[in-house]
Formats: sequence, structure tokens, C-alpha cells
Amino acid sequence: MNEPRYASAGVSYELLDAAKKLAAAQALETTGLLRRRGGSGIDASRGEPAFVFELGDRALALVLECLGTKSVIARQYLDAGGPDRFENIGYDAVAAIVNDLCCVGALPLVVNAYFATGSSGWQHDPSGRYSSLVTGWRRACEAAGAAWGGGETSSLRGIVFPDEIDIAGAAVGEVPPGRAPILGQDLAPGDEIVLISSAGLHANGASLARALAAELPDGYLTRLPGGRQYGDALLDPTVIYVPLAELLLERGVPVTYLSHITGHGLRKVMRAKRELTYRIHSLPPVPEVLAFMVERTGMSPHEAYGTFNMGAGFAVFCGAGGGRQVIDAASEAGLTAIIAGSVEAGARRVIIEPLAITYETDELQLS
Amino acid sequence: MNEPRYASAGVSYELLDAAKKLAAAQALETTGLLRRRGGSGIDASRGEPAFVFELGDRALALVLECLGTKSVIARQYLDAGGPDRFENIGYDAVAAIVNDLCCVGALPLVVNAYFATGSSGWQHDPSGRYSSLVTGWRRACEAAGAAWGGGETSSLRGIVFPDEIDIAGAAVGEVPPGRAPILGQDLAPGDEIVLISSAGLHANGASLARALAAELPDGYLTRLPGGRQYGDALLDPTVIYVPLAELLLERGVPVTYLSHITGHGLRKVMRAKRELTYRIHSLPPVPEVLAFMVERTGMSPHEAYGTFNMGAGFAVFCGAGGGRQVIDAASEAGLTAIIAGSVEAGARRVIIEPLAITYETDELQLS
Repeated sequence: MNEPRYASAGVSYELLDAAKKLAAAQALETTGLLRRRGGSGIDASRGEPAFVFELGDRALALVLECLGTKSVIARQYLDAGGPDRFENIGYDAVAAIVNDLCCVGALPLVVNAYFATGSSGWQHDPSGRYSSLVTGWRRACEAAGAAWGGGETSSLRGIVFPDEIDIAGAAVGEVPPGRAPILGQDLAPGDEIVLISSAGLHANGASLARALAAELPDGYLTRLPGGRQYGDALLDPTVIYVPLAELLLERGVPVTYLSHITGHGLRKVMRAKRELTYRIHSLPPVPEVLAFMVERTGMSPHEAYGTFNMGAGFAVFCGAGGGRQVIDAASEAGLTAIIAGSVEAGARRVIIEPLAITYETDELQLS
Repeated sequence: MNEPRYASAGVSYELLDAAKKLAAAQALETTGLLRRRGGSGIDASRGEPAFVFELGDRALALVLECLGTKSVIARQYLDAGGPDRFENIGYDAVAAIVNDLCCVGALPLVVNAYFATGSSGWQHDPSGRYSSLVTGWRRACEAAGAAWGGGETSSLRGIVFPDEIDIAGAAVGEVPPGRAPILGQDLAPGDEIVLISSAGLHANGASLARALAAELPDGYLTRLPGGRQYGDALLDPTVIYVPLAELLLERGVPVTYLSHITGHGLRKVMRAKRELTYRIHSLPPVPEVLAFMVERTGMSPHEAYGTFNMGAGFAVFCGAGGGRQVIDAASEAGLTAIIAGSVEAGARRVIIEPLAITYETDELQLS
């Protein structure tokens, strides 16, 4: 794995992933405890974006997800004289949570919020950013069709920097009755890969975006070629893919896997724990802000597509011939989709033909 | 409300609580969304420690809770030459989560972890603290009878201080079939109040504990009268009250309310949104470390009992005559309990007779 720029921005996925393994080993020992309460854990969901368990004849899923450092961009952009974009930050956080949840075929029921600030005063900033944040959280819950149950608002002086906020959340969802959770078990050679449009940065790559802002003479106020400010474009809200997942499940589209393209970029196409090759022959348009970042940082295509979503925020895998239905459903959900490639027998890797990039299995270590 | 010392330690509950109200108002608008997925939210659970919702004939609850700043104590104690106590920190975090969940009468099924560090290297500290942390998390899940589903490990450079970790988690639980969630609706004059023993600081009051450590010449290595080090005693793991709650539910003890005594100390006795007076005639022994903190900071009894658990980590309210059963169940769960008082008709307040303290309703603003 070669991510010099990303590593220099302070994130080491290799180290994180080792830690995740340590936690995963401990977690695995506890699956059996669910039986005592009449449930049953599905260990095949470990390593997937949400943990799935059965309770009677229902399959439920629990996810806990963090926004990462995107809130710092919103704070810095506001400090630089930009408008308050914390509504989008609230929306982003919920999107990060529910997009993960729907990957296992579960639709969100309840979402809880976690807002940890470095000072009690964060919420009372005259910019109104806290009001914006909770408004965005509520709007995203509406977009995902989930209730906002509650959550935790903490002041963590000495842990969180005084002017910052750590945003995370949890969601519980249900796999629609009569459907099995989607854990990659049905992925097979010949499946089509459909890539769904993203809105830009989404929630991953924020550290790199901040590092670049620090290098630009006008920082977040730098104009992109099309005229928008860099900070403004970075803060476009993440697409919520739940309505698409819901349509696919309702219509019985033969979906074999769903992957939320976040950290690790298009390496996430091979997220399923299967020995299969994913060959991409077509790529979606790259959002302007991502193209700008790639150009200004001098990232190679290998690095760029292995870090950002590059215009593909979600991948749907389905049996041959199902791709057309995915595109239609995406269109109804207001999204653009393309049949981008197919699954083949072979070693676990992603091949992006138009760019002559190959990501090998050891370039994606999640858990 | 008069909390000069606590406020000077950087925590303003009054400000936090206003922010919670803002979020709660937005959350309330979303309850109806659950119907679309076949569920039904119970708004009476808003303001209670966990959000309760129905799905078919099941009642489920979701909670998201944060450990607060207790991890800083463990880090500072380790830095000061004390032993690694991060196993207790992991245990504390799960305890904070599941103790809240069981207050609504739900028993935990799955717990997810949230570990946000200020640097990718946190997990690789040679002290082995990360291994200790996840071991404690697993042990606490075992004590609570819940599976550890997964979670999120993030590096939040620029949000979290480099040497610190923000620890939180979420749990989903179920109200045992045939039982109603416990939301205070059955609380009535004449009910008995049983206070259950705590193990010491638990997860609340960490800011004040740190502030005191900074004032002591030997800091966390200061000896308490009984000989233990201050830091060591502070880090005694929180009691998990789930096995007690489970026994009470199994046996059909006429429980009318459960309150996890955390922030706000014994003011939490009046947590239920009911116009009732709670008269306490007996108090449990005060753990040595809390007595030490109260003495050294010069807190008044009003301040101390309104901030710390003072030896009572959990309160069980039950119909007259049920207190004896609670004491027996607590004993089987390895805990000490006392019938401490009773519920009366009257204004919402807590009266602690032995100390001539009264907490009025406006001294507890949670949501």
C-alpha cells in the first residue's frame, strides 16, 4: 500500500486496521451471549459495515459510525468568512451511518446522535452552527426514513479541542421480512457492478482536504475552475443511498452485494470477503472538487481512486441483467448510475481498466 | 443551581441541557417516520436514558452513551507511573451504556464500540493500553450478557488531543416479551426507593477528579486514608446493574422506575417526568475515594450529593413491600442495597433527610 500523501495528512489505515483486528478478536468471543436473550448473532456480518443478528423471525442490524474530521472543514470555512454549513455536516454524519447500515440489506429504524465538544460553549456559538447541525441531522433522518431517537451531547474538555466537535451516531435497522441480509454470500462471477453517483467528497478524505486548504493561498475561499469556492464544494452533503436500497429490496432486484465507497476509495469494491476479481470498464464523471484535489496534490490515479470515491459513492452488485433495474431505481431516487463492470472468477482484486489500475487484496485491510 | 466547583472544572450542565432541548425538539419531529417501516416510536421514552420503539410485538430500545473524560484519568495515572487501568476504562464505558439501557426495562442484546483517538499511534502504545481497553470492553459485555457487535475505531487528528481517546458506544436491547417498558408511568406515592451500592466514582465526576489531582502534591499517587492510591481508587470499574435488572424483571418484582445515578448525583432520583416527591431517610456508605474528594475540595453536602453518586449507583423504585425483593435480588447479584426512602405526593423534589438537603425540580434539567 502506498499512500504517502494520505499518511502525511495524519491517517494511517494500516495501523488502524491492526487495531480493528484486535477489537474484532475480542468481539467474536461474545457472539454466543445473544442466545441467552433469545437472539442469535450472525458472525458472517463481522467485517461488514453493520453487525447483523436475529431475534425471533426478524433480522436486525446495529451500526455505529463516525463522521471523521469533516466538521473541522466546516469550522475552518466558517472562520474564514464562509457561510455556516453545519447543516450539511449533520446530514453527512447521518448519511455515513445509514449508508453503512443499508449495505447489509437493513433499512434504518432509529438513529441516535453523538455530539462531543471540547467546551460547553460550542453549542452556543453566535453563528448558530449547533442549530444548523441538529437541523441537518433531522433532515437526513427524514431522507433515510428513520426516527431520531436521541443520543448524547457531551463536553469533553481535555479530550476534544475546545473549538471542535466529534460527531458520530448509531442506528438500528431491520432486514425487510422475507429477505436475507446481504453479506456477499451470493456474489458470483458474471454479476454486474453498478456504480452510483456521489455528490463530491462525502465523509472521507477530509484530512487531505484540510491539508490542501492549508497550502492554497486563499485556503477554503479558493475558486474552483467552475467558480465555486473550494470550501463550499467540499461541504456538499453526502448522498443518502437508503431510498435506493429500499427500492432495490422492494422490487426484488437480484442484489448480491452493496458497498458504500468511503475510506479506501474504489478499493472498497472488493470489500466482500470473497475470492473474486472485480473488473471495472467504465467510470462515472469525477466531481469537480475531487478532480481539483487530485490535480493540486499531484496524486497518481492509483492513489486517487484508492482514497476518494471519485464520483462513485456506492456500488451495487447484482445478477447478470439486473443492472438495468438498478439504473432505473437509481434514477427514481434522483441518482445517476452506470453499469461499470462485472465480477469474475480470480484472485481478490479490483481492476480499473480505463486507468490501468489494479488494487490487490492486500491493499484493503479492514478487519 | 449552585455548582461553582464543577463548573470551574469545565462542565456546565445548564448549557449542555439547553442544547439537549434543541436537539430533542428536532428529534421529536421524526417519530412518525418509524411507521413507514412497520415500527412505532414511544415518545414517552424521550428524556429517559434510552429511546424505546415497538416493532411488531417486540419493544426495543436504543442507547448511545459516552464515557466522558474518565479515560484521561487512566492516561494520567499511567503517565504518573501507575499501572495500566485501561481494562477498567473499557468496562466503565460498557457499564455506562448498558446501565442506561436497562433503566427502561430493556436488556442489552448487542453493544457497539466507538474509539476515537487523536493519532493513529494511540493503539500501539507500548503500555498495551489498547489491548487492555478492548479486553475490558469484552469482559463488560460478558457481565451484561450482550454481544459485542462491532463499532468504529477512528483517528481524529485535530479534533481529539493526540494522547487522548474519546470512548463511547451504542446498544440495542429488548424489553422482555410480556413486560412493558419502564418509563415512570406507574410511579406512585407509597412506592419504596431502594438504593444500590456503587463501586466509587463510576463514570461521572471525572473532570472534578482531574482538577483535584492537579492540586494534590502527589497527584494520582496520593494515598487515601486506607492506603490505596487516589488514581487507583478513582479507576475502580463501574458496577454493571444489568444482572440485577434482569432478576427483577424475571421475578416480576413490581418495579415502577429505575434510575442510573450518574451526572447530577442523587438529583437523578427525580429523573422521571412526574410531579412527585422523593424522601430519602437512609443513605449508603460513601466510598472512600468520594469522601476524600468531597473533603479535599470542600464541597458542601448539597453539592456533593448533587454531583457524585455518593455510594448509590442505581435506584430502584417499586410498589410498597417490593423493596425486600429488590434487596434479595441485589444480594444475589453481589450488590448491597438499602431501602432508602419512599415516594410521596407533592412537588417534584428530592429530600435527603439525614443531611437536610432538598433538590428542587429546577435543579435537574435533562431534556
